[in-house]
Amino acid sequence: MSGAGCELCALGESLAWRQVLATPHFTVLRVLDAPAFPAFYRVVWREHVAEFTDLAVADRQRCMEAVATVESALRGGLRPRKINLAALGNMVPHLHWHVIARFDWDSHFPQPIWGTAQRLSDEAKLAEVRLALPALDAQLQAHWAA
Amino acid sequence: MSGAGCELCALGESLAWRQVLATPHFTVLRVLDAPAFPAFYRVVWREHVAEFTDLAVADRQRCMEAVATVESALRGGLRPRKINLAALGNMVPHLHWHVIARFDWDSHFPQPIWGTAQRLSDEAKLAEVRLALPALDAQLQAHWAA
Repeated sequence: MSGAGCELCALGESLAWRQVLATPHFTVLRVLDAPAFPAFYRVVWREHVAEFTDLAVADRQRCMEAVATVESALRGGLRPRKINLAALGNMVPHLHWHVIARFDWDSHFPQPIWGTAQRLSDEAKLAEVRLALPALDAQLQAHWAA
Repeated sequence: MSGAGCELCALGESLAWRQVLATPHFTVLRVLDAPAFPAFYRVVWREHVAEFTDLAVADRQRCMEAVATVESALRGGLRPRKINLAALGNMVPHLHWHVIARFDWDSHFPQPIWGTAQRLSDEAKLAEVRLALPALDAQLQAHWAA
């Protein structure tokens, strides 16, 4: 099932994300258009469904184990203060999970990234996080290639 | 394991929520202090862990099936435009899932509830949603009593 005009069904090259890997059930993207939050990944379910409960139990488990794998990689590689997980989909009602590493120095902490900025971004610290991301991408690719 | 000073370990009477039900593994609350979003539930894991991946696989599945049960009840009872799911925990790092029914007329749609208001709340429509909540609470209680 595919959604006509759905940008997550038509996943392709984009300036907004890097496709890290694809499996038959889901795709993992790294988000590029939220510069204050570089360690921001998305697990996009391939089938065009809107809600988590549109999936059968086995697929919900498969989906959340993918989310957990991304979370574990972010925790191990970046030691963030907190991981934020969210499936919103108000704008693009095609099931996708945001997996975001948060730091106590980031621009919005402890607010959600969708809330009000609390301070300016720390560009030096952001640069350090960005440097670690190619290795994280590779680790995720290796996980699903195994 | 319990977190000293953690408000979600000390779950009790509160003006901020109504406790809908409790199982040995998790508690389900209905949030009372977000008046623009009355159909806002939380699944609070009982053990004091911060992150989803602090749970073993079986507990992650148990946790997400609780989230899915709440989501299904909200979808069936309210026919919302979208369900929003989120585990943030930046302020209270004790694993809890927000399960929020969103409507295209609500004050923030399609923005996250933590974002910028798009319009005034529609008090008549909110009152209609509120009227449906006691039956939803009872449905959830019956589900876990069964």
